[in-house]
Amino acid sequence: MRVWLNGAILPLETARIAPDDRGFLLGDGLFETLRAQNGAPLRLRAHLARLTRGAEILGLPLPPVDWEAALCATLTANGLKAGSLRLTVTRGGGPRGLLPPTAPRPTVLISAAPLAAPPGPARLIVARSTRRNAYSPLSGIKSLNYGDGILARREAQARGADDAVMLNTVGRVADTTIATPFILLGDRMVTPPLSEGGIPGIARGEILRAGLADEAEIPLHALEKVRGMALTNSLGIRWVQNLEGTPLPEPVDFMDFSRERLGL
Amino acid sequence: MRVWLNGAILPLETARIAPDDRGFLLGDGLFETLRAQNGAPLRLRAHLARLTRGAEILGLPLPPVDWEAALCATLTANGLKAGSLRLTVTRGGGPRGLLPPTAPRPTVLISAAPLAAPPGPARLIVARSTRRNAYSPLSGIKSLNYGDGILARREAQARGADDAVMLNTVGRVADTTIATPFILLGDRMVTPPLSEGGIPGIARGEILRAGLADEAEIPLHALEKVRGMALTNSLGIRWVQNLEGTPLPEPVDFMDFSRERLGL
Repeated sequence: MRVWLNGAILPLETARIAPDDRGFLLGDGLFETLRAQNGAPLRLRAHLARLTRGAEILGLPLPPVDWEAALCATLTANGLKAGSLRLTVTRGGGPRGLLPPTAPRPTVLISAAPLAAPPGPARLIVARSTRRNAYSPLSGIKSLNYGDGILARREAQARGADDAVMLNTVGRVADTTIATPFILLGDRMVTPPLSEGGIPGIARGEILRAGLADEAEIPLHALEKVRGMALTNSLGIRWVQNLEGTPLPEPVDFMDFSRERLGL
Repeated sequence: MRVWLNGAILPLETARIAPDDRGFLLGDGLFETLRAQNGAPLRLRAHLARLTRGAEILGLPLPPVDWEAALCATLTANGLKAGSLRLTVTRGGGPRGLLPPTAPRPTVLISAAPLAAPPGPARLIVARSTRRNAYSPLSGIKSLNYGDGILARREAQARGADDAVMLNTVGRVADTTIATPFILLGDRMVTPPLSEGGIPGIARGEILRAGLADEAEIPLHALEKVRGMALTNSLGIRWVQNLEGTPLPEPVDFMDFSRERLGL
């Protein structure tokens, strides 16, 4: 595998992150995961808008990179036309302590991988091990602080599931560890508003703008009445077939929409 | 500066963290900051107990390192007898996704620096930008997920202060960005219980065990009646002279205690 690091394409084995990088020491940075087709990233503008918003919240000045060229070059260097791309931006090195340097020199890393085979329908649990913090601006951006997602994903594995619904601190649904849930309650397809502590997913935004779902607060007890459910992120859409051990009768896959509008 | 990285002492400039290290990509790791005197770390047993507890929560198997020898070697390599040490342990590299590898090969990094000059009395604000999540196990361990602390520290700087009190999601005091607050309310010296979302500070534990303070929930409005306040962490004790613009009349520095018991 070859990565794009601060402007150079390098073998993974020789690319070096400095031990004083604040991304490594403090989780001080952001990332985006993009799907690529035909040698180029999909929905680049939306991903860059989200990255820019995250950088504003962190006060992290994004370096002047030709993002599209860098992402395409990473695909090419790995012999890929399609796949997934991960773009990581950290605040770079700095002195000890939490306060960022006044003139940070950010680290930019891009890696690419083939798309994994489409996963089957998901078995989902509701995470008991941790919750989202809707009071933190980090919940609304793709920061490197992914510890809660890792805890919940490990819990899902231990309980024989593929992913976990994450509640917020008042016990309502926020998101899952890596995806936005769309939930069929009665005849309504709903997803939590961003104020609940989830990430502003890009597929999420497209589905809402297409009028295929509404935002609604979803308390834990409402999950007992779920008829169907799907998970979306930038890599695809996944139907949920089982929630906390209960089969969900209705497949929900946004199939027409996803083929036509999401290009999946 | 020279660092200890996975068993070798290396110049910072050549020490390499791999770009697929989960500490860098996902904040998947832990750290400890230790004070050193006479060429050795202070309170090593307590720091290692906290590190071990954090590793259990993350399901991160700690590698078999002679921690004391490694910490001392890092001091020696930097010509230091006293100073501060930072010990970082991450889950190392892994495949894409949140799920850790089944047999992780953790990364261990140790760095050392001279002690900064003792800071003057602190000006403190109450962070408005973010809050601690008492529902997350990460709040009780020294994980690499330090984004909320960075947000609050930047807010403190922007508002002319040195540190920020962090509230939890129900609006009570949890801790500050890097320290445990001890707060004189009436005639009682109190600090929040760990269930409020703060870190189990080692100096905090010693002060409580010495009977110098009690645990108590501290709602935001109680801060209007604070008579005095001090901040403790493993590097020292700092008196708070100003909270949200209001001078605090009583110096609180645990001076007898800190000289005798904390060795500061």
